[in-house]
Amino acid sequence: MGEKRLAAFDIGGTSIKLAFLTTEGEIIRKWSIPTDRTDNGSRIVTDIARSFYKELEIDGLTTANVLAAGVGAPGPADPIEGTISGAVNIGWPNGYPLKKLLEEAIELPVFIENDANCAALGEMWKGAGSGATDVVCVTLGTGVGGGVVSKGMIITGVNGSAGEIGHITVMPENGFYCNCGKHGCLETVASATGIVNLYKQQGKDAPDARTVFQHAAAGDKAAQYAIDRCAFYLGLAIGNIANIVNPAKIVVGGGVSEAGETLLKPLKEYVGHFTFPRAMDVLTIEKAQLGNDAGVIGAAYLAKVMSVS
Amino acid sequence: MGEKRLAAFDIGGTSIKLAFLTTEGEIIRKWSIPTDRTDNGSRIVTDIARSFYKELEIDGLTTANVLAAGVGAPGPADPIEGTISGAVNIGWPNGYPLKKLLEEAIELPVFIENDANCAALGEMWKGAGSGATDVVCVTLGTGVGGGVVSKGMIITGVNGSAGEIGHITVMPENGFYCNCGKHGCLETVASATGIVNLYKQQGKDAPDARTVFQHAAAGDKAAQYAIDRCAFYLGLAIGNIANIVNPAKIVVGGGVSEAGETLLKPLKEYVGHFTFPRAMDVLTIEKAQLGNDAGVIGAAYLAKVMSVS
Repeated sequence: MGEKRLAAFDIGGTSIKLAFLTTEGEIIRKWSIPTDRTDNGSRIVTDIARSFYKELEIDGLTTANVLAAGVGAPGPADPIEGTISGAVNIGWPNGYPLKKLLEEAIELPVFIENDANCAALGEMWKGAGSGATDVVCVTLGTGVGGGVVSKGMIITGVNGSAGEIGHITVMPENGFYCNCGKHGCLETVASATGIVNLYKQQGKDAPDARTVFQHAAAGDKAAQYAIDRCAFYLGLAIGNIANIVNPAKIVVGGGVSEAGETLLKPLKEYVGHFTFPRAMDVLTIEKAQLGNDAGVIGAAYLAKVMSVS
Repeated sequence: MGEKRLAAFDIGGTSIKLAFLTTEGEIIRKWSIPTDRTDNGSRIVTDIARSFYKELEIDGLTTANVLAAGVGAPGPADPIEGTISGAVNIGWPNGYPLKKLLEEAIELPVFIENDANCAALGEMWKGAGSGATDVVCVTLGTGVGGGVVSKGMIITGVNGSAGEIGHITVMPENGFYCNCGKHGCLETVASATGIVNLYKQQGKDAPDARTVFQHAAAGDKAAQYAIDRCAFYLGLAIGNIANIVNPAKIVVGGGVSEAGETLLKPLKEYVGHFTFPRAMDVLTIEKAQLGNDAGVIGAAYLAKVMSVS
């Protein structure tokens, strides 16, 4: 029957990405289904199981051909209890027993992690972090997410809140208000809305970060300053992450990172400025490579590693 | 012959602490010898071995009664290669093969770590962190050192520079110069000299941190402000450590921590201010309990855990 494959599910607020992968991390096939958030997301597990079985059958396979499944979900995960908390986007109550419910539904070992942590594992295994076992991912999107990988495994912390990189305080005084209740979080200056915050702070306005980058390219000093401050704060956060966990690579992804060298060039300078010299000696900053596939690839890595140990 | 014991060596710039411990972490006996820094510290390994054999003989034992030895040394350690770098204090060249040399000298398995990391393991095992597996230690002395323990093991990073807590940048602009070459490191404001820096910044002067604390107790506003700023920056660093690794306990030790509640009370408030709410839910700040024994106890823990795995 050949080598077993891995199943991977990346559960998001609007859609769920599903994939089959080889144990070497190659995607055999991927597809997606909508996220049904009605009734507190209680149909999501059944939807995943139904789709999983159907696609397996199309390939003429059964669960006996699958080693295990890895799942990324949008909230802090307790990988040991197998629960997800704070997945307010999809309606699950705190401590939702995702691992147990999915294991009953697909009759396979299931391993769960926070979605940003899965993306970090994916980039480490097959993306920009490839070859390194100590990798930190920072995703600059609507918010700022992240994951810290040490010796090939995610640092989860006591209640799954490790890697809350978007909530590193970078403006300890006079910082912008953050949805988490704090002020001055990285997310308030290095996300898409954060760049607009920095632009507005100078009495200007723009509907989105893309427009700020366009203004900067056209010579707008305030826009250029906003981008430089974004790089400054992001460099400060990344430098301090490096001072604490000493990774080989910091992988920067998400929509804002599409700005490319405009952001990455000053960012690299600031990281050098804020990182302990010996930690800097081994550190490189890389652009994420896997895009939307990072989540399922990382979930598959989790399934592979955890089902062996 | 009874249960085997553990040997532990904590190598410092002026003295080397040696101890025998039970595998449960109780100190059977401890003693110390001076650190011979002549000839680039090349006699240190022989001195340790000679003292170890002599004390073992006094107890009527041989190396067959010892499970393994753990060693803390003052520089970044590469636990896999078994080398110590940057131990400028005692004269060793970079990449000094401490593990190999000691294993040849005492004919036992030897496991090495940075001394601050050993202290963190010690506090986790038998001190203020007892009961938790995710613990961060911050030692406020002449400088600021630290160690990050995740799931019972030290995070070493790629080249042993993880846990460089003293070099977290807390004043990204207009910071004091640090010996590492950066500016605004935690060490420049939260060490004994750091508190004096903050006091001097207000046009005052004091010979040491103890005097600043005395002035504060006597009502000196500038001294009170200096201590508040020290707590502010330390709280910022600790909050950001918690946002990245989500520990159960942060253990604060070293001479400056002897100031007690004068420092710890404002510190706890600032940590609450800078920590992601969910990470704060599980976090407590504790005063270190083991004092100078933390190093040998942590080194013994290392010997125990590594010789089993």
